[in-house]
Amino acid sequence: MTTDAAGGSASPGLPRTHGLSALFQPRAIAVIGASADRGKIGGRPLHHLTGHGFAGPIYPINPNHAEVQGHKAYPSLGAVPGEVDLAIIAVPHHGVLDAVRSCADKGVETAVLFSAGFSEAGAAGTALQRDVLEIAASAGMRVLGPNCIGAANLRAGTSATFTFAVELPRPAGPLPRVALVSQSGAIGGHCVSLAPARGFQFDPWVTTGNEGDIDAADCIGYFVADDDVSAIAVYLEGCRDGARLKAALETAYRKRKPVVVVKAGQSEAGAGAAASHTASLVGSDQTYDALFQRYNVCRVGSISELVDVAQALAIGRIPAGRKTGIVTSSGGAGILMADAAVAAGLDVAPLPLKAQGRLKEIWPPAGVQNPIDTTGQVTDNAGLLTAFLETMLDEADYDVVLVFLSFLGMMAPWSDNVLASLEKVRATHPGANLVVSALATEPFRRAVHRLGIPVFDELTDAVRAVARTTRIGAGFGRSFADVPPAGVPRLAGDERPTEVSAKRLLAAAGVPVLPETVARSAEQAADAADALGYPVVVKVLSPDVAHKTEAGGVVVGLSSRESVIEAYTRVVRDVGTALPDAEITGVLVAPMVQGGVEVILGVRNDPSLGPAVMFGLGGIFVEVLGDLACRLAPFDVDEAEAMIRETRGYDLLNGARGRGRFDVPALAQALSSLSVVAAANADRIETIDVNPFIVLPEGRGAVAVDALITTTGED
Amino acid sequence: MTTDAAGGSASPGLPRTHGLSALFQPRAIAVIGASADRGKIGGRPLHHLTGHGFAGPIYPINPNHAEVQGHKAYPSLGAVPGEVDLAIIAVPHHGVLDAVRSCADKGVETAVLFSAGFSEAGAAGTALQRDVLEIAASAGMRVLGPNCIGAANLRAGTSATFTFAVELPRPAGPLPRVALVSQSGAIGGHCVSLAPARGFQFDPWVTTGNEGDIDAADCIGYFVADDDVSAIAVYLEGCRDGARLKAALETAYRKRKPVVVVKAGQSEAGAGAAASHTASLVGSDQTYDALFQRYNVCRVGSISELVDVAQALAIGRIPAGRKTGIVTSSGGAGILMADAAVAAGLDVAPLPLKAQGRLKEIWPPAGVQNPIDTTGQVTDNAGLLTAFLETMLDEADYDVVLVFLSFLGMMAPWSDNVLASLEKVRATHPGANLVVSALATEPFRRAVHRLGIPVFDELTDAVRAVARTTRIGAGFGRSFADVPPAGVPRLAGDERPTEVSAKRLLAAAGVPVLPETVARSAEQAADAADALGYPVVVKVLSPDVAHKTEAGGVVVGLSSRESVIEAYTRVVRDVGTALPDAEITGVLVAPMVQGGVEVILGVRNDPSLGPAVMFGLGGIFVEVLGDLACRLAPFDVDEAEAMIRETRGYDLLNGARGRGRFDVPALAQALSSLSVVAAANADRIETIDVNPFIVLPEGRGAVAVDALITTTGED
Repeated sequence: MTTDAAGGSASPGLPRTHGLSALFQPRAIAVIGASADRGKIGGRPLHHLTGHGFAGPIYPINPNHAEVQGHKAYPSLGAVPGEVDLAIIAVPHHGVLDAVRSCADKGVETAVLFSAGFSEAGAAGTALQRDVLEIAASAGMRVLGPNCIGAANLRAGTSATFTFAVELPRPAGPLPRVALVSQSGAIGGHCVSLAPARGFQFDPWVTTGNEGDIDAADCIGYFVADDDVSAIAVYLEGCRDGARLKAALETAYRKRKPVVVVKAGQSEAGAGAAASHTASLVGSDQTYDALFQRYNVCRVGSISELVDVAQALAIGRIPAGRKTGIVTSSGGAGILMADAAVAAGLDVAPLPLKAQGRLKEIWPPAGVQNPIDTTGQVTDNAGLLTAFLETMLDEADYDVVLVFLSFLGMMAPWSDNVLASLEKVRATHPGANLVVSALATEPFRRAVHRLGIPVFDELTDAVRAVARTTRIGAGFGRSFADVPPAGVPRLAGDERPTEVSAKRLLAAAGVPVLPETVARSAEQAADAADALGYPVVVKVLSPDVAHKTEAGGVVVGLSSRESVIEAYTRVVRDVGTALPDAEITGVLVAPMVQGGVEVILGVRNDPSLGPAVMFGLGGIFVEVLGDLACRLAPFDVDEAEAMIRETRGYDLLNGARGRGRFDVPALAQALSSLSVVAAANADRIETIDVNPFIVLPEGRGAVAVDALITTTGED
Repeated sequence: MTTDAAGGSASPGLPRTHGLSALFQPRAIAVIGASADRGKIGGRPLHHLTGHGFAGPIYPINPNHAEVQGHKAYPSLGAVPGEVDLAIIAVPHHGVLDAVRSCADKGVETAVLFSAGFSEAGAAGTALQRDVLEIAASAGMRVLGPNCIGAANLRAGTSATFTFAVELPRPAGPLPRVALVSQSGAIGGHCVSLAPARGFQFDPWVTTGNEGDIDAADCIGYFVADDDVSAIAVYLEGCRDGARLKAALETAYRKRKPVVVVKAGQSEAGAGAAASHTASLVGSDQTYDALFQRYNVCRVGSISELVDVAQALAIGRIPAGRKTGIVTSSGGAGILMADAAVAAGLDVAPLPLKAQGRLKEIWPPAGVQNPIDTTGQVTDNAGLLTAFLETMLDEADYDVVLVFLSFLGMMAPWSDNVLASLEKVRATHPGANLVVSALATEPFRRAVHRLGIPVFDELTDAVRAVARTTRIGAGFGRSFADVPPAGVPRLAGDERPTEVSAKRLLAAAGVPVLPETVARSAEQAADAADALGYPVVVKVLSPDVAHKTEAGGVVVGLSSRESVIEAYTRVVRDVGTALPDAEITGVLVAPMVQGGVEVILGVRNDPSLGPAVMFGLGGIFVEVLGDLACRLAPFDVDEAEAMIRETRGYDLLNGARGRGRFDVPALAQALSSLSVVAAANADRIETIDVNPFIVLPEGRGAVAVDALITTTGED
């Protein structure tokens, strides 16, 4: 839970982007601990800055030299004549405090701290980090790190990093810019190093290390606001302030700016390492999934996928839909790609018959349905590729065409022929969305990239990247509920809800709840049953009994007044025997619901990301299969329906096994209402369990049978 | 079904390896259609052969030249003075028939046909292919292709291919040899092209194209027999003769030779393309899974995984167990790798406490549990890596240690330091199983490979490859049932089994079947019920009623003599009304089974691979979730237990949801018995459905309630 007032984590904070322009577009840079040795951490940033052609003044701070790497050096930051907005602090951790003080005195806007030995390294380091941050905060100075490898914005000719990854050859030509935010320095450097071989670069990029001050959410927010950045790749381990992260991702969503994420910590071993490594409050992995789903963030499973999708976004185009054409020089590759495309949710729709006929005319041995197989003949006759591609683009409405060229990009004359063919097609079809998979030389790859066609080595990786960008494109269309609307019922400030008041709150919020009557005597129970109609259920009412059935507190299927009277007596007796200390305030009498499907609705309020709503079918689906869908609250009915359809158990609600269809719209309405009440009470409610919730046959509604709410501070 | 006699597909054929030594170790090679132009299909094989240093005579056949590419040319094959065992036929398809005739006349052992335009290209091509093969067969000559890119065995200095992939630079040094068999030429060439950049090569390799004669199974069989080949990678679309494929894989299994497969055609779009592309009889994908599982074949999902696993097998070592240590220069990478390792079934066991303490002494900020994090300090102090690795190897019993080095392999001096560290560790720990993930220069990669340590760019790919090789190693330990034992009951030659005779066959084979009595009158039914004990079930007995319940032919829960008499009358009346033409021969009376879990056992006899046995839990598991396990018949009880444990529904048999445990040993015994009877009757039985089969609580057995057998030739 955030420390925000009133609205709690449901009222989003804003990314703190002040000071970040000094990091990414500094006017003047000082390097504290600047070294003449370009191989050292104190020497590399200066070397990089000079090499990148930084336009403003660079001030090495070094008391022992008048000049460092060709720049006039100063004995201290205070001795620098002009203003300094960015300071790179490249001294060991024991010298950091003095360096930060000098930055504060000089009026530096942002300082970058490379050194380790802070909060990641025990109590003394934690204390040192706190002292550093207090000095910075009182001077209004932002801090990146400590324990990071810095940041760079090469297009602006600036960097504040010691990693040699920024020295790798960069792809030529103006490409859409994909920014990178990494909580890990090594992963950040790894990504930055991988990109050039794929024909693009991550720029600007930043690694946030210990996140003493500037965090991943701040940087994402800054890049979202920068219209020069077209997409953002993120390596995330956790976050301390979910509201800020949500706000950044929401703005990205509204601006339709793609965000791709690798989120670590899915396994216990991984989560344990993440917690000890970053000291972040790692939210439950499923809640992050809910967050990403809400804001159309593309979560991938590996760094190589992150780089693949970034490459597709930097060089290619986002498909407008799922219809995917596949053309290969090899039947086998076509089969593998079709398998992968179908598995990834793409639509490998057949070519229209007329176009099939046209291809058969051009080359009778071809496979013409989709996947389309030019056969190896394309090796001897590159005109075949041109003709096939033009036919596919002219006579079918594929949203994207995947072209597999095997190893033809590796050696002339084949690479020249194939390139000429792609150039011809690009000239006649400037808007066509093409993606190539081929083993290729660097010049071939660069030339194809210049046509706006990304090249992937591996055929199924190409398919997967296309499927990911297709989903990104489709995901921007959705609407989602805003902050909870006014008038949503709230728990009183200190109320600890009982079963009865929990149900009352839910009912008031629009979650249908079984009508039930509180009875404090056997006679009252029988009267209530008469009024409700038989059969009924009798359940013990006690704040002290969590598991009613186990305590003998539930009797079902009562079909007469006499049996209700008998059940009342038995329940009070049995619960009293099982739990002698329990206060029994009466029983609940409720009608029995029959003929529905039991599902489970739940809310967990993540300390970092706020309340998330879970849905699953009862019985083996949740208990054995872990078949759950999850969304951040609040969300609307459409999103609730999407969530229901996502579970494997959905088929059972939709008429599988000949049992007819159940009232999914009523279920979706209840889920959405639950999400709204959870969001409106995010400062108070810790968990909600609605179990079972019964979905009745189509048109007959749905109803909560039992509900439990726990509030913050309860055990 | 194969055309083999008696035993049908259950009696395995043998791979036909004669003629393959002429393909892979020829003594003298003729190139029919040899061209002076090294860029042409007729010129490239000659060029390659010369370049590879083939030791024997090479005879270009070309009536227009006295010399081709420096070799004396001959006007016809008949004019060649010496013997020729391998002929490469590089002429267009209309010239192939004459060329093949000349080969047959010359006594050539094996001919390679590159050209397309045969069975893949319509009726005329199919006829031409048949003619070619008839000529070859009558001369006892083997044929590779048509429509393939040939084969190579570079260590023996020979090749018979036109692909320039064989011209790529080859890794130095003697490595274990990984052979490649590909049914697709382009995929084969693609793999051969990818390997050198990974530091190994596929050699020998072969592409089988249309498989007019030599097929993938023959080649796998040949490579299994070749003790110089240490592992085999396969790209498979289907197979015509499953018995041969099974025999080859079984021999590989017995010799503990790893086989890695990409099998295309999982999706409908893919399977459709496969069928039209190869004209193979594509078996059901699930049956292939069963085949691969039986013989410990490692099925991977993409070409890049195939190459990853092949690289791990060529350069690295197979882990002896699942215990995996992870050491990284980055906490983030450790988290990602731990997540991937756990997901892939590896055991990321913590380092012993003593060793943790030792690492903390060496470098206090390190993460020491597992994944182990040296922190970026390893950049400045390579001795740290040596000390950490030696501690992990000395004080823990990891089966493999994964080392993530980020981009340190890309630039000196870091790459030199890290390499020195790995060399030291190798010197002190010659038996250690290490795998590196790092971005690396070629020289760095080669140097690390020379230490027997494979280097992967991508960290999760490295984890996945290790998990695959670990499974390969573990999978060789299993036993499996041989050909069905003697004495297994068989259907009579022309018998079409009824429900009663089907159950009798199964019971005789050891599948427990509910005791039931045939009754031909109401009185007989009542007497039977008295003898069996109540409650009982009455079911109509008729060869014409497939769906008994729908026809009103089943009454359950009969608890008295009177109710049985009434039920008999009602069943006969209701079925007679519903299906007036059905012959009703009586009823079956059986005891009611209660308190068990319903499962489904099934057999499908695949035309290519023979009978496979399927298992799944009844209800939603099979119907909604498709939760099935599948094995080729026959198999033993251990394998049956493994199969049961593989299903998601297994938890339900093993005590999930508080229902206690059920008799899994009895279920496993029944599955194994079913597999044996299916294998023994593979020539006759098409399908067996045992549904429901009831598994009773632990120690109480299991029993088939209903069974249906269909035989070959039935609808």
